[in-house]
Amino acid sequence: MKKTIRVGLIGTGFMGRTHTNAYRQVGQFFDTPFEIELKAVCSRNAANAERFAQHWGFEGFETDWNRLVKRNDIDLIDIASPNDTHAEIAIAAARAGKVVACEKPLGRNLAESRAMVDAVSAAGVANMVWYNYRRVPALTLVKKLVDQGFFGRVFHYRSKFLQDWTMSADLPQGGAGTWRLDASVAGSGVTGDLLAHCIDAALWLNGSISEVTGTTETFIKERHHAESGRREPVNVDDASAFLARFANGSLATFESTRYARGHKALFTLEINGESGSIAWDLHDLHRLQLFDYRDDGSMRGWRSIHITDGDHPYMDAWWVPGLQIGYEHTFIHQVADFLNGLGDGTVTVPDFKTALETETVIDAVLSSAKSRQWETVAQR
Amino acid sequence: MKKTIRVGLIGTGFMGRTHTNAYRQVGQFFDTPFEIELKAVCSRNAANAERFAQHWGFEGFETDWNRLVKRNDIDLIDIASPNDTHAEIAIAAARAGKVVACEKPLGRNLAESRAMVDAVSAAGVANMVWYNYRRVPALTLVKKLVDQGFFGRVFHYRSKFLQDWTMSADLPQGGAGTWRLDASVAGSGVTGDLLAHCIDAALWLNGSISEVTGTTETFIKERHHAESGRREPVNVDDASAFLARFANGSLATFESTRYARGHKALFTLEINGESGSIAWDLHDLHRLQLFDYRDDGSMRGWRSIHITDGDHPYMDAWWVPGLQIGYEHTFIHQVADFLNGLGDGTVTVPDFKTALETETVIDAVLSSAKSRQWETVAQR
Amino acid sequence: MKKTIRVGLIGTGFMGRTHTNAYRQVGQFFDTPFEIELKAVCSRNAANAERFAQHWGFEGFETDWNRLVKRNDIDLIDIASPNDTHAEIAIAAARAGKVVACEKPLGRNLAESRAMVDAVSAAGVANMVWYNYRRVPALTLVKKLVDQGFFGRVFHYRSKFLQDWTMSADLPQGGAGTWRLDASVAGSGVTGDLLAHCIDAALWLNGSISEVTGTTETFIKERHHAESGRREPVNVDDASAFLARFANGSLATFESTRYARGHKALFTLEINGESGSIAWDLHDLHRLQLFDYRDDGSMRGWRSIHITDGDHPYMDAWWVPGLQIGYEHTFIHQVADFLNGLGDGTVTVPDFKTALETETVIDAVLSSAKSRQWETVAQR
Amino acid sequence: MKKTIRVGLIGTGFMGRTHTNAYRQVGQFFDTPFEIELKAVCSRNAANAERFAQHWGFEGFETDWNRLVKRNDIDLIDIASPNDTHAEIAIAAARAGKVVACEKPLGRNLAESRAMVDAVSAAGVANMVWYNYRRVPALTLVKKLVDQGFFGRVFHYRSKFLQDWTMSADLPQGGAGTWRLDASVAGSGVTGDLLAHCIDAALWLNGSISEVTGTTETFIKERHHAESGRREPVNVDDASAFLARFANGSLATFESTRYARGHKALFTLEINGESGSIAWDLHDLHRLQLFDYRDDGSMRGWRSIHITDGDHPYMDAWWVPGLQIGYEHTFIHQVADFLNGLGDGTVTVPDFKTALETETVIDAVLSSAKSRQWETVAQR
Repeated sequence: MKKTIRVGLIGTGFMGRTHTNAYRQVGQFFDTPFEIELKAVCSRNAANAERFAQHWGFEGFETDWNRLVKRNDIDLIDIASPNDTHAEIAIAAARAGKVVACEKPLGRNLAESRAMVDAVSAAGVANMVWYNYRRVPALTLVKKLVDQGFFGRVFHYRSKFLQDWTMSADLPQGGAGTWRLDASVAGSGVTGDLLAHCIDAALWLNGSISEVTGTTETFIKERHHAESGRREPVNVDDASAFLARFANGSLATFESTRYARGHKALFTLEINGESGSIAWDLHDLHRLQLFDYRDDGSMRGWRSIHITDGDHPYMDAWWVPGLQIGYEHTFIHQVADFLNGLGDGTVTVPDFKTALETETVIDAVLSSAKSRQWETVAQR
Repeated sequence: MKKTIRVGLIGTGFMGRTHTNAYRQVGQFFDTPFEIELKAVCSRNAANAERFAQHWGFEGFETDWNRLVKRNDIDLIDIASPNDTHAEIAIAAARAGKVVACEKPLGRNLAESRAMVDAVSAAGVANMVWYNYRRVPALTLVKKLVDQGFFGRVFHYRSKFLQDWTMSADLPQGGAGTWRLDASVAGSGVTGDLLAHCIDAALWLNGSISEVTGTTETFIKERHHAESGRREPVNVDDASAFLARFANGSLATFESTRYARGHKALFTLEINGESGSIAWDLHDLHRLQLFDYRDDGSMRGWRSIHITDGDHPYMDAWWVPGLQIGYEHTFIHQVADFLNGLGDGTVTVPDFKTALETETVIDAVLSSAKSRQWETVAQR
Repeated sequence: MKKTIRVGLIGTGFMGRTHTNAYRQVGQFFDTPFEIELKAVCSRNAANAERFAQHWGFEGFETDWNRLVKRNDIDLIDIASPNDTHAEIAIAAARAGKVVACEKPLGRNLAESRAMVDAVSAAGVANMVWYNYRRVPALTLVKKLVDQGFFGRVFHYRSKFLQDWTMSADLPQGGAGTWRLDASVAGSGVTGDLLAHCIDAALWLNGSISEVTGTTETFIKERHHAESGRREPVNVDDASAFLARFANGSLATFESTRYARGHKALFTLEINGESGSIAWDLHDLHRLQLFDYRDDGSMRGWRSIHITDGDHPYMDAWWVPGLQIGYEHTFIHQVADFLNGLGDGTVTVPDFKTALETETVIDAVLSSAKSRQWETVAQR
Repeated sequence: MKKTIRVGLIGTGFMGRTHTNAYRQVGQFFDTPFEIELKAVCSRNAANAERFAQHWGFEGFETDWNRLVKRNDIDLIDIASPNDTHAEIAIAAARAGKVVACEKPLGRNLAESRAMVDAVSAAGVANMVWYNYRRVPALTLVKKLVDQGFFGRVFHYRSKFLQDWTMSADLPQGGAGTWRLDASVAGSGVTGDLLAHCIDAALWLNGSISEVTGTTETFIKERHHAESGRREPVNVDDASAFLARFANGSLATFESTRYARGHKALFTLEINGESGSIAWDLHDLHRLQLFDYRDDGSMRGWRSIHITDGDHPYMDAWWVPGLQIGYEHTFIHQVADFLNGLGDGTVTVPDFKTALETETVIDAVLSSAKSRQWETVAQR
């Protein structure tokens, strides 16, 4: 008999949708020890909350997250609201003994993030952060290759996340759709938003980063506010780039921007090792580019591996070879892994503690952008 | 208030799964006039039927499709069982006044297919055939281009569907997983299975085919039967290719096979017109390759259009630009379109009548493979 | 000490240029037993011949090829003039005891081609046909793979040659630049021009073709003549496609056209074998796509092999890894091979006899286009 | 009547070969005011010099570059010897009133480079530096786009040059084939070798660089010397990366390495502007990737422009559309441009003065790698 896990979701935006879709679908495709009950969704706007609850099949709704967190009929609090709410909610949920799932990044800054880790640790509650790209089958396969020693000594790592959606000077800042352009809500611009994904994957695949030197830029200096209409200085970074050295001796370049015309969500990563290399990008997430130096000399080349076979990670749950999956499946995979971890009492990464390492790198990058020097990445 | 449409599904295999997934998801992403109720699923094997019903949320199950078809609490019969059952079930369902959705192809041959069209026509019931690839957003966009006259006069059409899953001589024929290798069940091999998709898309995008000359091949002549274990002659075509002339004067090549090592489900199509060309393939279904001769001379090139924007067909229902969808979404789109058509009383193509044209082409191809001559495609 | 080979070239068009460039460069990059002397070039137009001779470094020129063929100071006659001159010149040159190099195809038709083979055979002179694409390093590597049994049993072969340069209705026919649109000069349209390349490569890589069924099309039915200005019926095929069966049991599709908008010289070929596949195209001639089924299951993919390494065919003669060569190098390679063959008395393929097999296939294709039936390919 | 320019070449290695090939071929494909006479080649090793002279058609040879520089029958001194000889020879050649062509980079360091610029300036002699990639037709087209304002405001520039040829620990340093691993000869490692190309193209296409922060790495710390056989510390940078800000406000990342497994000579560059983007790489040098934001919304995509048409830069001199050129053609183009510049008295870039700007950036990068801070790029 399956146990039941009762979910309370906070946030009805893009991430509220993808998380909910994952909860609804996981049981059809993955066998986990849990049945999910969508208990309640929370949004400050009651009409909004009710509409979301009805559409997505939540039993009810709340307008105050404090009430949601305190409800006895809820086991898991999922935080899909803007970044400025993450710490407060996560800490309250942990204290209330809830399992906590938090959309990335942890907090708006390192201090908030540390407090979040301390809270779940003190409470001893299971927790995870939605760095969903770890569950792209192609990247899960890369992790297996890393663990098998496929690469030998690693020399280079490079990663980018390029978008172009904020290039119009007419786009406002602040407000529901554009809170990512307001540092008081988001914490930072592309660094905490896009580079966070690059860094999380890098730490997972290539180990710790020792030191960084970075820079940020705000190309459009003033925008009108979505709510007030007033023109105000833009306080987030539109672009962010840094050089890094990993503990394993490899050298890295990282870059993210929302001003790369022609790239919508081009998250890329590449690893160059002694005996092989891989490259991947989100625009064709079901393909892995792989170079194996052990192949015969004149026959070496970059392989385009179409990650749709039953022996590729997660893919036996889906269709048949040649038929690809999409973006939302990464969330379904993460829920499946997390439920399995809950079932057997193991930690599913990235948990809060793991995700904190990404925050320490972000903090070092933003510090370096100010100090204009290399910054050592804090141990915690 | 939405109306309810009560679904009875026959077949619990791969297509039973994709259809059901579409029924379950359509309401979350598309606004149609109907709520879907998954009423009953039917499989000859009771345990199998029950398990499927429980897993996918059908209220109940049947083991005899005749009983299902006669139930008064069912509005739509969805036929996802092997090809040899399509005609009999579809005709019975039409006579029972049900809406009929049938997995492609129609029947095992032209006679069965004609009888199916006659039945739904006589009964006046709504109907559709699951040629799902028409709902790949990239291909829907191509159809819009066709309708807008983007191509000018069309000179060439080419399409292939290449797989490699039956290349092992150890693979059996017949039985649950391999009925596609048994002509008495499937009707034909790759011609009715894979080429059917190529032909359906071609007729939709480029109009009627006038005449064809084709050939088929069975590379492995004997296989053991999955159930009896006996070695028996293989009676399906492993490969099929034909040349064609369209009514619009364009020349075409078509090919399908299950012996193209390295290609899992490589459905491709290309149109060359006076003022532009397009190419597409299923392995990267969210990309459209387009050449526009109207571009400035020295700047002309094939564009790789990443079909993930809100102004691309169907894509405003999904995620954000740059984030792709997968195979199963095409079925969801088809259900959405069909339900909308049911709502406003319009025909959603391909209905049975439309799909019959594909059968006439298949029939001509198979006839030509025998006669070794060009064959005119029958008018109906 | 190197011997000297004295060249007399007929034709000052595009092919006159590429052949001459090859003669001039071969000695810098390949070590062969011969020094080449560019003795004389022949064109009916004296001014043209003189200009070409001066520009490209020929000692002198002729305006009558009969005179050239009879000169005692010439060892090799290279025929780079339009197709209607090939047979007559080649036969005369053979009778005069010259080595003969002939631009492809052999003659305008099978009868002319056979007479050419008979002439060089009777005269016992060395000879070759400029099917230059055999000397693309990537294709030479494919030939090595074929010879090593890389593919196992071959199931499929497909090849196309797509262009778009004659799509304008304003393009004239006949005359210096457009003799390829005049069947009395060219013999046929794309069949003898483009498909000839596809067929030559196919016979070389996959063995004999047993039978074919084909069709041709002339999209623009009338054009003005380049010289007379009169509108006249177009008598060449603008497009040509055929299905084929090889002696090794594999099935093939071939297609060529000058009406494929967006493709300039897209010569492609693909082989699907039991244990591997390859694909190549002329637009990226320095890349070979290769699928090796012997790779580990979950790591299989199409490799893009960048054919620029010293251990790739011909490439040790050129630059360093990563730096590609271009189109004209294939001619240089062919001269190098031919001179080496002359030196050690071995036949360099394709010689006239080998190239005749391509003519028999072309003849069968054109016959089939008329008979609308399968045609057996003649033995000679 | 054409004038004659008499060339004296110093260096018989890889670059001696590519320059000479360019001198030999330019007259066949480009109409310039000059005939080139290959007068003498110089190498310290007499046998080597003589062999090179004979093979490539130089009239004679020298073993002492001082003698070559002083010869009255030579107009142009081409320096294709290792970096440690560039300054001394160039200065002497300038003082002797010769036209000077120098392989990149200028000197081993900024001081040497400045002295070289001063020398040619004082002498008033024409001069150029072989940054050959400016003459890749695709990049010349990008320059045209820049000049036409295609991009609008530029936000990002990124460039890499990745190789893997020095990854083996068994590779020696110093000596004829591996002097690039000896800083006393080369000046620096990949920074002056590979990044120099990236920087030259960047300055040309995107204007001045204001400041940089960079880092370098030597992965293999000791190698045996090619001549002495002794193990010695490696003193060149194996990898080098930097962040940069351009005067136009754009942000950039640059990286080069010889430890990127799978990449042979992957020189890449990308520009992201307000109204469009381009990307290019050397492994497919005849293709330009271009994104034009002015295209219709739902039809936007990255175009792969096959740079083989007559209206593409330099391409009317070569073959026909669809047929590509290779690496060595860039040198031929550069000679053609330089000769034309000599003819009409205009400066052909990059001359020494232009190339000095690249040296100032290199100097700032190497300084930053030591200071671990941002460094301002010197004005000269």
